[in-house]
Amino acid sequence: MIIVMKSGATGDDVRHVVERIEELGLKAHVSQGTERTVIGIIGDERFIKKEQLSLLPHVDDVIPILKPYKLASREFKQENTIVKVRDVSIGGEEIVVIAGPCSVESEEQLLETAEVVKAAGASLLRGGAFKPRTSPYAFQGLGEDGLKLLATARERTGLGIVTEVLESSDVEIVAEYADMLQVGARNMHNTKLLRSISSLDKPVLLKRNFSATLNEFLMSAEYLLAGGNSRVVLCERGIRTFVEYTRNTLDLNIVPAVKQLSHLPIIVDPSHGTGRHDLIIPMSRAAIAAGADGLIVEVHPHPEKAFSDGDQSLTPDDFRQLIAQVRPIAEVLGRKSAEPTSSPVRSKPA
Amino acid sequence: MIIVMKSGATGDDVRHVVERIEELGLKAHVSQGTERTVIGIIGDERFIKKEQLSLLPHVDDVIPILKPYKLASREFKQENTIVKVRDVSIGGEEIVVIAGPCSVESEEQLLETAEVVKAAGASLLRGGAFKPRTSPYAFQGLGEDGLKLLATARERTGLGIVTEVLESSDVEIVAEYADMLQVGARNMHNTKLLRSISSLDKPVLLKRNFSATLNEFLMSAEYLLAGGNSRVVLCERGIRTFVEYTRNTLDLNIVPAVKQLSHLPIIVDPSHGTGRHDLIIPMSRAAIAAGADGLIVEVHPHPEKAFSDGDQSLTPDDFRQLIAQVRPIAEVLGRKSAEPTSSPVRSKPA
Amino acid sequence: MIIVMKSGATGDDVRHVVERIEELGLKAHVSQGTERTVIGIIGDERFIKKEQLSLLPHVDDVIPILKPYKLASREFKQENTIVKVRDVSIGGEEIVVIAGPCSVESEEQLLETAEVVKAAGASLLRGGAFKPRTSPYAFQGLGEDGLKLLATARERTGLGIVTEVLESSDVEIVAEYADMLQVGARNMHNTKLLRSISSLDKPVLLKRNFSATLNEFLMSAEYLLAGGNSRVVLCERGIRTFVEYTRNTLDLNIVPAVKQLSHLPIIVDPSHGTGRHDLIIPMSRAAIAAGADGLIVEVHPHPEKAFSDGDQSLTPDDFRQLIAQVRPIAEVLGRKSAEPTSSPVRSKPA
Amino acid sequence: MIIVMKSGATGDDVRHVVERIEELGLKAHVSQGTERTVIGIIGDERFIKKEQLSLLPHVDDVIPILKPYKLASREFKQENTIVKVRDVSIGGEEIVVIAGPCSVESEEQLLETAEVVKAAGASLLRGGAFKPRTSPYAFQGLGEDGLKLLATARERTGLGIVTEVLESSDVEIVAEYADMLQVGARNMHNTKLLRSISSLDKPVLLKRNFSATLNEFLMSAEYLLAGGNSRVVLCERGIRTFVEYTRNTLDLNIVPAVKQLSHLPIIVDPSHGTGRHDLIIPMSRAAIAAGADGLIVEVHPHPEKAFSDGDQSLTPDDFRQLIAQVRPIAEVLGRKSAEPTSSPVRSKPA
Repeated sequence: MIIVMKSGATGDDVRHVVERIEELGLKAHVSQGTERTVIGIIGDERFIKKEQLSLLPHVDDVIPILKPYKLASREFKQENTIVKVRDVSIGGEEIVVIAGPCSVESEEQLLETAEVVKAAGASLLRGGAFKPRTSPYAFQGLGEDGLKLLATARERTGLGIVTEVLESSDVEIVAEYADMLQVGARNMHNTKLLRSISSLDKPVLLKRNFSATLNEFLMSAEYLLAGGNSRVVLCERGIRTFVEYTRNTLDLNIVPAVKQLSHLPIIVDPSHGTGRHDLIIPMSRAAIAAGADGLIVEVHPHPEKAFSDGDQSLTPDDFRQLIAQVRPIAEVLGRKSAEPTSSPVRSKPA
Repeated sequence: MIIVMKSGATGDDVRHVVERIEELGLKAHVSQGTERTVIGIIGDERFIKKEQLSLLPHVDDVIPILKPYKLASREFKQENTIVKVRDVSIGGEEIVVIAGPCSVESEEQLLETAEVVKAAGASLLRGGAFKPRTSPYAFQGLGEDGLKLLATARERTGLGIVTEVLESSDVEIVAEYADMLQVGARNMHNTKLLRSISSLDKPVLLKRNFSATLNEFLMSAEYLLAGGNSRVVLCERGIRTFVEYTRNTLDLNIVPAVKQLSHLPIIVDPSHGTGRHDLIIPMSRAAIAAGADGLIVEVHPHPEKAFSDGDQSLTPDDFRQLIAQVRPIAEVLGRKSAEPTSSPVRSKPA
Repeated sequence: MIIVMKSGATGDDVRHVVERIEELGLKAHVSQGTERTVIGIIGDERFIKKEQLSLLPHVDDVIPILKPYKLASREFKQENTIVKVRDVSIGGEEIVVIAGPCSVESEEQLLETAEVVKAAGASLLRGGAFKPRTSPYAFQGLGEDGLKLLATARERTGLGIVTEVLESSDVEIVAEYADMLQVGARNMHNTKLLRSISSLDKPVLLKRNFSATLNEFLMSAEYLLAGGNSRVVLCERGIRTFVEYTRNTLDLNIVPAVKQLSHLPIIVDPSHGTGRHDLIIPMSRAAIAAGADGLIVEVHPHPEKAFSDGDQSLTPDDFRQLIAQVRPIAEVLGRKSAEPTSSPVRSKPA
Repeated sequence: MIIVMKSGATGDDVRHVVERIEELGLKAHVSQGTERTVIGIIGDERFIKKEQLSLLPHVDDVIPILKPYKLASREFKQENTIVKVRDVSIGGEEIVVIAGPCSVESEEQLLETAEVVKAAGASLLRGGAFKPRTSPYAFQGLGEDGLKLLATARERTGLGIVTEVLESSDVEIVAEYADMLQVGARNMHNTKLLRSISSLDKPVLLKRNFSATLNEFLMSAEYLLAGGNSRVVLCERGIRTFVEYTRNTLDLNIVPAVKQLSHLPIIVDPSHGTGRHDLIIPMSRAAIAAGADGLIVEVHPHPEKAFSDGDQSLTPDDFRQLIAQVRPIAEVLGRKSAEPTSSPVRSKPA
C-alpha cells in the first residue's frame, strides 16, 4: 500500500501516518519527493482497511499495491487448474461445451434437448430448476421436480448436469442431484451462498455479475477457494453498458486477462452475453479464439415456445452449426473439442 | 405490444403473426405502412413473452407498449403512498433521515452513535448485523448479537431500527427485531428473498442495484406489492459507470423520474452513492432539492476505526452539519424536517 | 510516479529500472517490501510517459501520483476563479442563468425568446448558429446569419451572448460576434480547437464530453489555460450510462468534486443532461443545491415547433417557474440570483 | 413511427394528434387497445422530429420504427460493399491488416516499421502525422512533415498509407498524401469534417466513438454516404465502460451486428480497443473469428521509446506472431490473409 500525502503535509503529519502504520503491525518506508511525500507499507496489506489510513490528516490518497485476492491468483499457483465434472475436464486441452434449455419445462422438452445436444457434441447438460426472474408474473421454475427430471436426463444420456442454486438453504437439495452447481450472475456477490458452497466437494460454475470488475469477480472465487472448494470455473456472460443492440455486452477481453492473473478456467456464455440468438455462433467462435476453455449455450427444441429466454436459445440445427464452426478454431489453437456422434449438416460460416 | 414486420414480409407472414396473437387470446390490429407493416396487439400484453412473437418468420422487432409493472405504477394508484415505520411517515410532508453506522460493531459504538444521530435530528437508526462483504477476509457482521444491540439502542433512544436481511432463511429472525427490513443493492434481484418478505406486515427499504434500470427497480418493488406487502420505500444508492472520482455515480435523476411513474416514496443514500465522506453533504442537499423523501447516511463516532465503510461515514459533527444544511432546503420545497434536540454548531455551506 | 515490480523481480531488474529513471533526469527511491519492491520517482513526473517504464522487464504496474493537470488545479491556485462575461461574473456569489433556444431559427423566434428569458431573470443568452447534428438530414444551423441575429438580440436586450464554435477555422468569425465561446461536448477532446481558442481574450464555456472522466475534463481546461486563456467555465451536461429513462445521466457529483480539485467555476446543463423537459426544474434545483455556479437551459416559445431539441426545451412559463424555484435555494446557500424584471406566476414546487 | 397515448387520453386528444400528423404530410392509423390507444404513421418518418408529436397533450411515448440511417443499411443495399485502397480490397474475401506506428516520429522509425510490417504480411501502413492528445504537454505530431515521410515509406515499400485527419481545414493537405483518410474516434461526431470528406473520391476509415451506439455509428457513415462518398470502412476500437483491466472495452459484438444491419465492411483495432499490448494477439484472433474484415494494429520497433501509445504497441516479433496466429483462423472461416514475405518464427498461441 502506498500513502500519498497532500502537498502541504508537514513532518508531523508524516510521522502521524507512520505511527498508525506501525500500530497496525506493519513497517513504513518514507519517500520524500519534490512535490509530495509518499509512504510505502512493508508487509501484507490485505488485512488493513484503506480508510484506517485515508482518513488521517493530510493524506491525499491510499493506493493498494497487492491484488485483493490471493488463492485465485497465478502468483499463488502457477499451473492451470483443471476442474473435473464427472469424466469431463474443464481447463485442460479440451474445449468443453455445456448446453441445454434455459428452464427445465417438462420431461419431454428436457429429454429431447438432452439427446440433441449430446448427439451434437455437448459434454454437459444445463437446465434451470430454480429460476430468478425479473417479473413476478413469469415462470419461476419447477423446483425439485426439475432436479429430478435432470437426473433422469443424466441417466438417459450419460451427460453430467449443471444447474443453478439460488440460496444457501437450497444448496443441500441441489447438490444431491447436480454434478456442478451454478452460481448465477445475480448471486456472484451473495457471500452467504458462496460460503455454503465453499465447504462442498462439488465443482462450481461462477458467473460474472453484469457489473463486476475483474477484481470483484476473482474475489468471489476467492470466497470459494478460501472456504476449501478449489473446483471453480469462471464464466463471462456479458456486462451492462450503454450499448443498445445486445441485451448485455459480452466482454471477451476478460478471457485473456483472467488467463494472466489467475489459474482458474474460464468459459463463455454467448446466450446471455448477447441476448440474441443470431449473434451466438459468431461470438462462440470469437470466445474460443480468445482462449476460452469452453462455452455454455441455451438450446431449445422450439425456442418460440420456451418458458424463458426463447430469444437467445439456439435450435438443434443452429447448435450443430455452432459445434461445427467452433471445432476447427479449437484445433487451430491446438485444442480438442468433442466429436458429434451424429454428423451435422455442413454449412459455411456466416 | 407492437410487432414490426421486416420490409419484405408478405401477406402470409402477416397472417401467420395474426393467427399466433389470436392463439394467445388477444386481438391483432394490422396497420399497413408504406415501408413496413405494423401489427398492434389489443389486450394485456404483460402475460405474453416477447419471443413468442419475435421468432416468427419476417418479424423485425417486438416493442412493448405497457410498462412491465402494474401495482407499482402511478396509473394504478394516483396518490402518493406513505409508509409508516413506527411513528415515522416516509413519503409525506416530512423529510426523513435514517442514520447510523455501516456495521453494528459493539454496544458502545452503537449506543454512542444512536444518541448522537437522535440528538441531531435523525428519525430512524440504521446498522448492519448481517454484512455482505466483497472480501472473505473482511468483517462479516455480528449476526443475531448485532440485532440484539439494535433492539437495545431502540429501547434507549426510541428510534425505530432499519437493518438488512440477506437471505430468505434469515427473514424471520431479522423481522423479530427490525422495524424496517432493508433489501440491499446486491439483493434487489433476489426474488426468493423478495417473495418471502412480501408476505410480512413490515415496511421494506428496497435499494437499487448498481446496474438496475428504472424498469427493473420497479419490477423488484412489484414482487413485494404482488405478494401483498405494500409498505415499500425505494432507495437510490449510486450506479456503476465509467466515472473514477466517486465509488458509484449517485443518480439523482431517478428521483423525479420515480415520482412521475410510481406512487412509492424514494429516499437517497449519498454514503454508498458517492463513497466519499466529503461529497455527502452537498449531495444530500441536492437529493432533497431534487424531491427525495429522505436520506439514509452512515455515521460513525470514529470513522477511521470503523470495521467497514469508514471512507464514506460522517463524524457526528459532519452529521449535525448535514441536518443543518438540509433543513432549509426542505423548507424551500414546502416540506418539514425534524428539529435537532440539541442545537448544532452553525456554519456556512461549503 | 510509483513503479511496482513483479513478485519475482531480481536486484538486476530493479537496478535496470533505476537507471532508466535516472536517464530520464529524475531520481529513484527504492522501497523493498516483503512481497514486492516498489520504486518511487522524485521529480515532476508529468513529462514522462508511463510506458517508458511500464515496458521494462518485470515491471508490474506504474502508478501516477500527481494529477496530470497543473494550472487547472486548486493546488496551483487556491482562490476561486471568477470569469467575467461582459458585466456578468461567473463563479462568484451570484448564481448565473444562461438561457435561450437550442438553435437560432429566425429573428422572430430569437427575439421573442431573448425578451422572455431576460424578463424572467436570465443573465446571458444562448443560441446555436453552427449545429452539430447526429443526422445528415437534420437542420444544421443558420451559420453567420445566426450570429448576426444573436448580435441583434444582444442589442435589443443587453444580454451577452454565448454560442458554440465547431472548428478552429470558425473561431475568428464566431469570436467577432460572441461574448463567450462554447466548446460543445463532442469537441471537448478537439485539441486543435482548444488550442486556437486558448490564445483569445474571450471567455470559454467548456462542456464535458459524455464519456469524459474528471481528469480528462480538467485536461481539456488545461489546454486552454496552458495556451494563455484563463477565462474558463466548466459545464456538466450528462454522461452516457446504461440508464434508459434519461437521454444522458446528469452527474451532479462532479460539481463538489470539481470544487475540491479545481479553482474553475462549474455550471450545469439540465436540458442536455436529462433530455427531458419534465426533469429540468427538479434537476436545476438539485444542481444549485450541490454547489453549481449557474445553469444553462434551453427555452423555446413553442417547443413542439423547435428545429432541434424541442423535447428538452422549456416553455417561457416553465422557465419562469425554474427561476422562481431556484432562487430560494441559492439564498439558502448564501448566494444571490438575479431578480425577474416581470414577476412570474407563483406556484409550488412539484 | 408509433404514437402511444396516455391511458386517460380522450377522443379529442387522439384527433388532435391525427391532425398534426396530417399537417406533416403523413397518414395516421388509429388502433384502439383495451388499455391504450396507439397511432401508427404511414409514410417516411425520417424527416419528422419526434418532439413534433411527443409534446402534444396526452402523448405518452413516440417510438420510431424505421432505422434513422438509410444508405448505410442492408435494406438499401443487399450485397457487401468492397472498398478499394490502391490495390487492396477491404470487405471481400481477404482479411486486411493495417499496421504501423501510432505517431510518425522520424524517417528512421517510420521506414524501419514499414519494412517490418510489410515483410510480416501487412497490406497497408498506418501512422499519425496530426495527433489528438489528451495532454497539452504531450507530443502533437509532425504535421505535414509526417505526411511527407509517409509518402516516402509508401514509395519504398509499396504500401498504401492510412492517416488521420483532424479538421475540415486539413482535409485537402492530408488527402494529397494519404491513400485512405482516417476519422478518429474523437471525431466520429464531427459533422463538419464528415461533410468535407464526403465529397472526396478517397476511401475513409471511420472509427467508432468510445461512447457511440450502433445507430450513431451508422449515422456518421450516413453523413459520408449522403455526401457522395461510398468508400467507407467502419472500425471498432473499444467503448468506455466501468471495466478496469482494459483501457477501453473492445466490443466485438458489433462486428456480427453491423454485418446484419449494414453492407459496409468493418475492421477491428485491438490496440486502442484494449490498450494493452499483451491482449492484442488473442483479441485479434477473436476479432477475425467474429467475422471482422481486417485489423488495424500499432507496431513500433522500440515501444518503450515510442512518443505515444507505447503501452499498446506490438514489437516486430509480436506482430509476426499476430499474423501467424490470425491466418489459420481466417482460413477456417473461408477467408484469405496475405502471406508474409519473410517467414515468422513459429510459436504456439498463448
